[in-house]
This record gives sequence, structure tokens and C-alpha cells, in this order.
Amino acid sequence: MKKMSPRTRVLTGAVTLAAVGAATFGAVSATAAAPASSGKGAPAAAPAAASGKDTRQVDRLTTAAATKAAEAALNAANRAGQHVTVAVVDRDGNTVVTLRGDGAGPQSYESAERKAYTAVSWNAPTSELAKRLEQAPQLKDIPDTLFLAGAVPVTAKGGPIAAVGVAGAPSGDQDEQFARAGAATLDR
Amino acid sequence: MKKMSPRTRVLTGAVTLAAVGAATFGAVSATAAAPASSGKGAPAAAPAAASGKDTRQVDRLTTAAATKAAEAALNAANRAGQHVTVAVVDRDGNTVVTLRGDGAGPQSYESAERKAYTAVSWNAPTSELAKRLEQAPQLKDIPDTLFLAGAVPVTAKGGPIAAVGVAGAPSGDQDEQFARAGAATLDR
Amino acid sequence: MKKMSPRTRVLTGAVTLAAVGAATFGAVSATAAAPASSGKGAPAAAPAAASGKDTRQVDRLTTAAATKAAEAALNAANRAGQHVTVAVVDRDGNTVVTLRGDGAGPQSYESAERKAYTAVSWNAPTSELAKRLEQAPQLKDIPDTLFLAGAVPVTAKGGPIAAVGVAGAPSGDQDEQFARAGAATLDR
Amino acid sequence: MKKMSPRTRVLTGAVTLAAVGAATFGAVSATAAAPASSGKGAPAAAPAAASGKDTRQVDRLTTAAATKAAEAALNAANRAGQHVTVAVVDRDGNTVVTLRGDGAGPQSYESAERKAYTAVSWNAPTSELAKRLEQAPQLKDIPDTLFLAGAVPVTAKGGPIAAVGVAGAPSGDQDEQFARAGAATLDR
Amino acid sequence: MKKMSPRTRVLTGAVTLAAVGAATFGAVSATAAAPASSGKGAPAAAPAAASGKDTRQVDRLTTAAATKAAEAALNAANRAGQHVTVAVVDRDGNTVVTLRGDGAGPQSYESAERKAYTAVSWNAPTSELAKRLEQAPQLKDIPDTLFLAGAVPVTAKGGPIAAVGVAGAPSGDQDEQFARAGAATLDR
Amino acid sequence: MKKMSPRTRVLTGAVTLAAVGAATFGAVSATAAAPASSGKGAPAAAPAAASGKDTRQVDRLTTAAATKAAEAALNAANRAGQHVTVAVVDRDGNTVVTLRGDGAGPQSYESAERKAYTAVSWNAPTSELAKRLEQAPQLKDIPDTLFLAGAVPVTAKGGPIAAVGVAGAPSGDQDEQFARAGAATLDR
Amino acid sequence: MKKMSPRTRVLTGAVTLAAVGAATFGAVSATAAAPASSGKGAPAAAPAAASGKDTRQVDRLTTAAATKAAEAALNAANRAGQHVTVAVVDRDGNTVVTLRGDGAGPQSYESAERKAYTAVSWNAPTSELAKRLEQAPQLKDIPDTLFLAGAVPVTAKGGPIAAVGVAGAPSGDQDEQFARAGAATLDR
Amino acid sequence: MKKMSPRTRVLTGAVTLAAVGAATFGAVSATAAAPASSGKGAPAAAPAAASGKDTRQVDRLTTAAATKAAEAALNAANRAGQHVTVAVVDRDGNTVVTLRGDGAGPQSYESAERKAYTAVSWNAPTSELAKRLEQAPQLKDIPDTLFLAGAVPVTAKGGPIAAVGVAGAPSGDQDEQFARAGAATLDR
Repeated sequence: MKKMSPRTRVLTGAVTLAAVGAATFGAVSATAAAPASSGKGAPAAAPAAASGKDTRQVDRLTTAAATKAAEAALNAANRAGQHVTVAVVDRDGNTVVTLRGDGAGPQSYESAERKAYTAVSWNAPTSELAKRLEQAPQLKDIPDTLFLAGAVPVTAKGGPIAAVGVAGAPSGDQDEQFARAGAATLDR
Repeated sequence: MKKMSPRTRVLTGAVTLAAVGAATFGAVSATAAAPASSGKGAPAAAPAAASGKDTRQVDRLTTAAATKAAEAALNAANRAGQHVTVAVVDRDGNTVVTLRGDGAGPQSYESAERKAYTAVSWNAPTSELAKRLEQAPQLKDIPDTLFLAGAVPVTAKGGPIAAVGVAGAPSGDQDEQFARAGAATLDR
Repeated sequence: MKKMSPRTRVLTGAVTLAAVGAATFGAVSATAAAPASSGKGAPAAAPAAASGKDTRQVDRLTTAAATKAAEAALNAANRAGQHVTVAVVDRDGNTVVTLRGDGAGPQSYESAERKAYTAVSWNAPTSELAKRLEQAPQLKDIPDTLFLAGAVPVTAKGGPIAAVGVAGAPSGDQDEQFARAGAATLDR
Repeated sequence: MKKMSPRTRVLTGAVTLAAVGAATFGAVSATAAAPASSGKGAPAAAPAAASGKDTRQVDRLTTAAATKAAEAALNAANRAGQHVTVAVVDRDGNTVVTLRGDGAGPQSYESAERKAYTAVSWNAPTSELAKRLEQAPQLKDIPDTLFLAGAVPVTAKGGPIAAVGVAGAPSGDQDEQFARAGAATLDR
Repeated sequence: MKKMSPRTRVLTGAVTLAAVGAATFGAVSATAAAPASSGKGAPAAAPAAASGKDTRQVDRLTTAAATKAAEAALNAANRAGQHVTVAVVDRDGNTVVTLRGDGAGPQSYESAERKAYTAVSWNAPTSELAKRLEQAPQLKDIPDTLFLAGAVPVTAKGGPIAAVGVAGAPSGDQDEQFARAGAATLDR
Repeated sequence: MKKMSPRTRVLTGAVTLAAVGAATFGAVSATAAAPASSGKGAPAAAPAAASGKDTRQVDRLTTAAATKAAEAALNAANRAGQHVTVAVVDRDGNTVVTLRGDGAGPQSYESAERKAYTAVSWNAPTSELAKRLEQAPQLKDIPDTLFLAGAVPVTAKGGPIAAVGVAGAPSGDQDEQFARAGAATLDR
Repeated sequence: MKKMSPRTRVLTGAVTLAAVGAATFGAVSATAAAPASSGKGAPAAAPAAASGKDTRQVDRLTTAAATKAAEAALNAANRAGQHVTVAVVDRDGNTVVTLRGDGAGPQSYESAERKAYTAVSWNAPTSELAKRLEQAPQLKDIPDTLFLAGAVPVTAKGGPIAAVGVAGAPSGDQDEQFARAGAATLDR
Repeated sequence: MKKMSPRTRVLTGAVTLAAVGAATFGAVSATAAAPASSGKGAPAAAPAAASGKDTRQVDRLTTAAATKAAEAALNAANRAGQHVTVAVVDRDGNTVVTLRGDGAGPQSYESAERKAYTAVSWNAPTSELAKRLEQAPQLKDIPDTLFLAGAVPVTAKGGPIAAVGVAGAPSGDQDEQFARAGAATLDR
């Protein structure tokens, strides 16, 4: 992809800002992605463009793929008659997709997210990670983690890029089967 | 549906508990839904069953329908070249589905949830609700709300049962068009 | 109940909004339930009405019933000379009723809520659930739970719809007796 | 009431502790109120008993009275066809009673608590307090406050001892009428 | 003390409000305690005055006494060459006095508060309460508690009204000696 | 003061650790300040000692001085018949002393802390800082700040080292007078 | 880079796990990145490997580059005699580098992070974004944002990948100059 | 250094404020360090200047030194092929520097901060402190602590003034080696 010059970007930004300025009260979004000109002449106000030597590339699961995995996990649970929540998180632990299944208990939502967070952090299923607590029980005191079976990591090029977490079945092993069914949709 | 007697339920619970007891370490789920026997003889330990006069029925959007609406909203945004997050919440403000679109900014996730929370709380699009702040600016100090255009309620029998919230487009009006496109899938 | 047409709803909303607009400063509520018109013509701005195939029905304890149960639990504690807090939560873990008894310690308030949250999540008395920690001690790391005796679930059609939680007596078993006394008022 | 000697208290505590020691696993309460012996001989381990010159007396609304007020407020709302939450807080802002009415929106729960907190903090109805923001708009940045009409204080001997807060009606003035109806039950 | 009539109170409030109205921008306090008139005629807007049958009286440690106890605890620590924080909380767990001693570690501040909160909740020294975890380890999962030696309750008429908590010495037993030295100033 | 050699420190630590090891269950403090040996031979495990060129010196108010200032502020309020909370924070915004006066409202505690935090952050009385909001209203969105009159900074060598904050009087100007009376005790 | 087969990864994981199992108590890290075998035979337990069609690539600033930019911003402030904190966040708003300068006020730390978060969310300097509040003042209610001058985005291929935020100088414009000086180190 | 007189400081403040007043909208910083005049004549509004007897001096690691240590720790991890986050905190537990290494897991950021917080609180490596949990397991319930190997304290004149924490390697012992390598840069 061709890299835009700073000047080009600034002009684009100015146009966008004008559009924004014309919006009616209350309608300006919280999320405009376009750069804005400084209004004082241009290059000084342009965002800095990082050169290639200052960047690295990371793989991310697409939202479409994460949704496909989450739906497959939920379907697996439904077929087994279980009421669960499914969460897919990215490498940084941010939630990408959540699906709270019909009738899933209130505790399942944050449980699914935390299981997935835990799996992606250590790149292992939470059923495995729970065993590590025998060696180092304080691992479970790390914020936002949950060392209960039910989540599996998703990898690319050997490193973790996401995880699928499930909570709500009578056993964590069952939860993890559903999570695995979801992740399996990516493995093809 | 036939209502189980307390005794029947207790027996079911006992079976489930046995299964749980046999599980390997770390595998017991956080989410078993079955009742458990008290182990001291049964009826006293059974959960209380509420009679009909003590209950009321409320409508909930199914997870399948919420997913359908969220995907439609995200597709509408993608077609418009916008990077957004979509959230669907139920009448109690709990998140049912979230989809963080590819490239959506970090602020869009909680923005989408809060817009949807706000729309379902007052049963109106957030573009409308933002106008009410002229009368009562303190409304926006209520926790978990966000008075920015981008969310629309979903109703059943005249009352709000859910809301679809979107954040990430350059204007809130655009966000709300995507939310509306999502909600429209339910209107048939 | 007859379902209003979208148009009817919009008109109602318009009237409500007008009323709101006439309110004096500071008086507009945080909680108006009526839909609002978009002010640009109507149907596009109407909330989406979900069709029957997109909804499911769930049972909820009425507030009157929850209050009756909470008061019965508190009375049972008072008769036993104990100072407790009572909480009733719904299926989603939201608090419906709390009664902080005279002289109850500060820790009892959130304890009662968390016990009830735990009981409704797994549909079992917390005295039972505490035993499950022998198998899976990490269950207690799930946010908002408390695995101490003192709460019992309330069911309808075999599933949990609420829970009564009590905290403040010298033993959790006593707390749970009071909770049970409260739930028993629903069992008739 | 006769003041127990430290020694007497210690003996009582010892008995209680024995009872606790005999309890089955998981059954010890989070809330035992009795003092415990130090096990090293007694007086040194006794809790310190404050003398009269080190204490002052404050009035508190009884839980029974707070419940009566909350129910009256909720009934007033129900008669008006409004879905609201009612909260009663004490002089220190702690919640004593909450009643989430059938169909009340999710935002009403914390709104009612915060309105009541605000009213008891400044000993004035929140409809009055909202006007003070014209002079000092930063008042609303104080944590846990909400400057929206809907709450009234309850006094004893001229000072605030509690407040009743309501949220959920289309206007805050209506909310405050219901709160006033609740508080009025105490004024006799 | 003579109880003011509602009307008297309203007039007082009106005067206060006038004073407030005259204040310069930014100067209105967050904490005015006087009632305010409704401006619509008076009695309807008066705060409700609770009658005697709706109130109970509770003992509170005066701030002067709490300060005396905290200073005595800190002095005892200083004499022993220890760097500690001291906290005094009331029956509801609210902090009344904190003194962070010179050189006390960052963890000591919240530790002292939580120890005191724990001691007042169960009316026992935290050295005693720590032993109860053998019976019911989940007690320590109750929010805001800390089951480490270092705090002692203060009683009046046999019930807990406050607690003194200390943290920062090499052993919790030492912390508790300092706390006891502080509480002892009240026992005369 | 003579700087201990790493080896000396390690030996000291070893002794302390032994003492800790001998402590009875539950009695080990959360706050031991002595270094501990690594148990594997010594120098490698010693804490690193920063050399002079890697450190700078900062002034801190002593706890005794902070207490003196807080008591003077509270006394000034009491003499004026006002019920307030006083907080003293250090240059980093950490609370050093708090005194919640008899009868002070619940909102006064965190208000006093935040006012003091704000004053020490910008080294100006909050009555001054409130005026800056006319230029930059978003300043008040910075976490933990409160732009209401009532706090004054304390300086040493021209820079801020602490602040005294007061909340609870009918006007912020009065609060600030009390804060100033407290700070004045340091100015001699 | 060659993609490992699932089986290869599992074997690697098994080796790692053995190493972990041999670690002494307390030494197991919170952060092991290697996958672990399920211990039940292998392929089922392997993490799912996402195929190329399910992933997308995103640019990230390297930590080295972020550190270089942060140090340059801090140096610019030091040269101007200002005490500031510098924060660099990535596209998802996660903090990559923070440098709290000598003598920077306590409010500067979170201010710098939030300014950077805001700049990367909307891909514009916060001095520009602050102006958008005239159109949509509710933007500033989005969690974790701060609409004060002082942060600039960093882009790659036209999209935001990071931001540099500064807080602590007497004016936000000065803060933003320092941020720009930091970002400029990337622009070569 | 010569101590400025209060009057001098006030004049300086007045100049600064004028500069601020001239700034364009949105440009006033959140972080101006200069005192401001009261605008009512001067001395009364001057910040109180603490005399020497009311202050004590504490050593702080310079930001330059903390950065040097953090970079050395990160380099050591990189040389070992590990992906970690490094945090340096001061004596009060405030973060001074953080460096999130390329590819470090999401859990490593807060883990590194908490390990460092723990090490500075008790002036010992966290590998040592983890062993103390055998005696007093409740230590780990103190907020913001993490008892996992990976952090070492930095001392001056025998007392802790900072700590370096690392998280992300497969074992905590490795993390602690990297932390030690960072701290060692200060020991010269």
C-alpha cells in the first residue's frame, strides 16, 4: 500500500472536519478516524508518520473469523443443551466478540472473558494453566485472570493471537470442549 | 411446560453433583445450573419454587436475534467503509452481543455499550436523548450512560427490551444509521 | 396486550417529549420510558419492534414478592436476635430488594448481595456451593461471588429466577435458615 | 442498658467461638458479632470500651421505618403508572433499603441511590440542589452525587438522618413527589 | 434539645440559600448543611421530620477521641522505631481518622483501614479473626476486609462502635500492640 | 548518616526473617521493612543501593506537622460551628492525615481529599483553580480532582510539598478559610 | 517465518511444562508464553492455528521506538524547564511506555495517558479534538478520554498506530510541543 | 537554594496566570505548577511555606536513573529471548517508568507494576516475599500486591526508595534476574 504524504493526509482531515462542523448538535461521533488540520498552515500539525524501522507487524484475528468461532462454540453448547457465554479476545486481551447465550447465568459473562484472557496470556488452555497453580498459586492473583477450564488459545506463526473462552456448562471440561469447537473453525 | 416437583429437582441435582464430584482437579465449571441436594435428606434443602402469583413474564431478545442485528449493523458500517464496534444490550442493560470491527478505535467498544445502555434506559434513540440535555444536563452524570447519537431501542409490546449501539464512524448520525440497519432486521 | 403500531408509538412519544420540553430546569427525569419522535417525519425514527420469533419469555419475581421474602427473612433474624442484611437478586444477578437490618455490620450488605448472586448463578444454596470449592477452588475467583453459606435460590419451572441472601448472624448456617424462611413465603 | 464488664464479654466471646469451632466446613458466617477471647488470659485481649465522654449519640432511621417509607414511595409511583426504583440512605450515605420496582429501567437503581445520597449530604431536596449548580457547577463532580430532582431528606432534631430517593418517572418532579409521599409516612 | 418546627427550618434554609446566591462564582460549597426552601410556598418543601418511634440511637466515637487514640497508637509505634499507618473507623466502616506515619510503606495505608474495617465488622481483634479462616477461608473474600493481625475493636454498651487499625511493623502482633495502645486511651 | 554495606544489610535481613519465621500463624505483618536474604549466599540477593548521582532529594511534610495543620483547620471549623472533614495530602497526592469531624456529611470526606489533591497538583488554592475552568473546562475531567474552593497548597523552597483541603461548610470560601488556618500553623 | 505444525508446538509445550514443573515454589512465572500439552495424547489439546484468511496484519510501534519518542519528549520539556509525564500508547490504547519526569505533579501521570488515548482514538492532536467539544460536548464523557491539548497521534500507512501524550507544563500548548518533539523522532 | 519569599512567589504566580488567561481555548494545561494570586491583594492568598522543622527529606530515584534501570532490564530479557514488561516504582508505590516489551502478554503490564509495588513495600525481592505467605497467607490480600518472583528493591541509606519489577518470562526466577540486571545499573 502506498503511504500517503503528510500533506495529503492533512487535506483529507480538513475536509472531514468541515463535514463534522456542519453536523447538527449532538450528532458528532465519538469515533471519527480522520486526522484534523491544525488550522495554522499544515505540516507542523500533521500526525507523525512512523518509518518502517520503527514498526513491527502483528497478526490479528479478523472480526469475521472471531464471530465465526464464537458462533460455533455457542452452537456446540446449544446442541449439548448447555447455557453458556462465549468470548473471543485478541492478543492484548481486548474483547473482540461476546455472545451471551439464552439463559446463561450472570457469572458466565465475565468468566468467559477472563478465561479467554488467561488462555491468551500464557498461550495454553486454561485446563492446563489451572494445574500450574499447584506450583505457583499466586498466579491467580494477577488481575483479570481466571484459572478455570474453558478457554483455548488461537495461534498464528506459533504465537498466540487470540483465545476463545466459554463459561456456563456444569463442568469446565465441557466449557473447554465448546471453546475448542469454536477455535477449530479457524484451523482450516 | 410441566413444573417439576421439588423432590424431582433434588434428585436431578444429586446426580449432577455426583458427576461434578468425579471431575478431575480444575475441571469443575463456574457455571453448573443444576440444583444440588443438601445431603441431609431432601425437601428442606430444595430451592424454593415461586408460585405464579409471585412472578411476571418479561420479553427478551434471543441471542440469535441479537447476533443477527449486530452483524447487520456491522455489515452496514463495513459497506460504508467505517470501522465501528456494535453492542446489543438487554432491558436490564446487560450486554448480550458485542462485535468489535476490524480497525475500530479503542474508545468505540465502551462507547457502543454505553450508547445502547442509554437508549434502552429511556426507550429512545440517543440522538433524541442528547437533546434532552438542554433541559436537564445532569442526566449525563448517571453512571454508564452516554448521550451521543448512535443507538436505537428495540421494543416488544410497546416497551423496550433491548438496544443496538454503534460507535466509530466520523459522525454519530452515521453510527445511528448503522444501528438502525441492525435493529431493522428484527422488525419483520 | 395489544401491540401498538410504530406510528402510534411515535405519536405518543411526541406528546411526551412536548411535556418534557415544558418542564422547568432540573426537573426532567433520568427515567422517562416513552419513545421520542425523531422530529424529521416519523417511521424512520421509531424504535424497532421485535417480532415474536426473535424474543423469548423469562420469569421474574415481582418486586412485591421479593419484598415479602426479604421482610420474612429479616423478621426471622430479628426473632433470633440477629442483626443481618437481606438481599434479593434476580436471575441476572441484579439486586431487586435490600434491607439492612438495625445494627447489622458494614460487611453484611455486600456479603448478602454476593451470596445471593452466587446462589442464583449456580442454582444452589451457597452452603452447597461452598463444598464445590474442594474440587475447584478457583470458582471463588469469579467476580461478585461469595462462597459462604447464607443464600438460597428461588426457581420457576425448574430454573433459577432469583435468590435470597442473608449475612450477619454468627454462623452462615443461621444466615441460610433466615434466607430459607424468606424464600419459603414464595413456595405457596 | 447495663454495660457489660470486659471480662463478661470475653467469656461470651469464648462460648461463641467454641460454637463456631464446631461448625461444619463452609458454615462459619461472615458476620459473627460476638467478641472473641485472645486465648492468652483475658483482660488484655478485651476490646476497649469507650467511656461516655468519648462518644456522642446519633439518630438513625429504623429499618422498619425506612422500609415503610420506601414502600409508600413505590406505591405512589405504581398508582401513577410509573416504573421506578426507590432507595433510602442513612446520614452517612449508606443504603438502608432499596426496592427496584417491576419494569424500572436499569439506570433507575443507581440514580435513586445517588439522588438520596445527594439529598442527605446537603439536607435539601435534589430539586433545590440542582439549582445550586448555577452558582457552583463543580458540585456535581463530587463522587456518588446526582443533582437531579427526585430525593428528599428526612430529619430528626433539625439535622438530616436519612433521605428517600426515587428514579424512573418521566420527570424528576414526579420522582420527587413519590419520594415525598414516602417520607411523609415518617412525619407523624 | 428542642426540636425545630418544619417552618422554622424552612426559614433558616431560605436565609442560607440567599447567602449562597450572593456568593461569587466557584465559591459555593459542596457541603452546605442547611435545608433549602422550595420557593413555592413552604411546608410542602420542608424535609420530613422523623418521629421518635421511627428512629433509634447509636453511639459514635467523637472525632476528638478517635484522634487521641490514633495519635497514641502512632506514638507507640514511633517509640518502638516502627513506621506505620493508623486508621480509626466507625461502626459502619467509614474512616474517621488516618495518620500515615513518616516513612510508612505504601501498602500500610489501605492495610490499616481494612484491618480496622474487619475488626469492627466482627467485633474482635484481627489476630483472633485470622484464626477463623481455618474454619471458613472464604471469609477473607468479603470486600474491604483484611484478616491480618493489627486491629482491635472499640465498644460501647457491649457493642462495637469503632476500631483502631495499624499496619507497617515487621509483625502483625506488633501492629496490634500499637492499636491496643491507641484504644486503651479510650478505656478510662 | 552512614550508608550500610550491602552485606551488612543482608545479615540484618536474615535476622529479621528468622524472627518472622518464628511468628505464630496469622501474626506475620503486612509491613515488615527489613530486607531479606536470598538464602543462596548473599551479595546477589542484596537490594541494589542507588548511588548519589541516581537520586534526588524531596521535602515532605512530617506527619506531626500535617496532624497539627489538620487539627488547626478542624478547630477553626468547630469554632465557626461548621461540620467538616479535613485532609492533608503530600506532593504525590497521597493522603497523609484525614479527620472527619463530628457530624460532617458523607460527601465531605472524598471532597476534602480531592480538593487537597487539586491544590497540590497545580500549587494554587482551589478557589483560584476554579477560575481556570473558564479557560479550560476540561481540566475538571482529570481523575481525582475537584475544582471547588476549600484547599490551599503548602510549599517548601518555592515548590508545593503538600496541601490542606476542607469540605463541609455552607460555602467553599469558608472551607478555604479553615484550610488556610490549618496551613498557617506551618508558616512559622 | 515457517509455521510450526500443531504437533511440533505441542511437543515444545510439553518440554516447557516439564521445566516449569521442576521449578521451586514461588518461582513459576505469571507469564510463560509456551503452549502446554493436554497430557491426553496430543492433537486435540493443541491450540488452534488460524489460517491466513482469518487474520489481518496491523502495524505496531516497536518498544524501542516508543522509548525513543518518550525520551525525546521528556528532554524537550526538561530543556524548557518544565516538569512533565510522558506516555506512549498503541492503537488499542494500551500504554507502551511511561516516563514520569522528576518533580511532575501527581495529576500528570494519568493525564498524559488519557491525552494519548484520546489522540490515538480519533487520530488527531488533542488540541484539535478539544475544539470538537463545541459541537458535541458529550464526547468528553467517553471513559478514559481527556480533551486537553498535549497529545499527537503517530501514523503508519495513513492510519493511527500510536500516540504520544504529555502533561505537566503550564499550558497544554506547551505540552503538545513536547509531544510533537517526541513524535518527530519517528518521522525519519 | 534560596527560599523565595511568599510575596515573590505571588508575583510570579500573577504573571503566569496572565499568560494563562491569554491562551486560546482548550490550550490551558492541566498541569501548571506556578502559584496563582488571589486577586484580592496578596499575602493572604499565598501558599503557606512550611518551615524546616515541619519537613523531612526523602531520597528519590531520578527519572533518568529509573529509565536506565528499566532499559537494562528489558535488554537483559531481550538477550534471553523473552518478552516482558518492566516497571519501576518509587517508595510510595507510584509508577515512574514502564516499558512494555515487544510481544509481551497483556497480563505482564500490571504484573510488573504489582511485583515492584510489593518489593518496595517490604524492601525485599518478591522471590523472598513469596515465601512469607507460608506464615501469613493473607498478606497477598493486600490491595495492589503480587507475591510472585520478579522484582527487587532499590535502596538508599539503607531504606527502600524504589523497586524494579519484571513479568513475562516463563519463570519468575528469570523475571527476577532481569530485574536484578536493571537494578545493578544503579549500584555503581
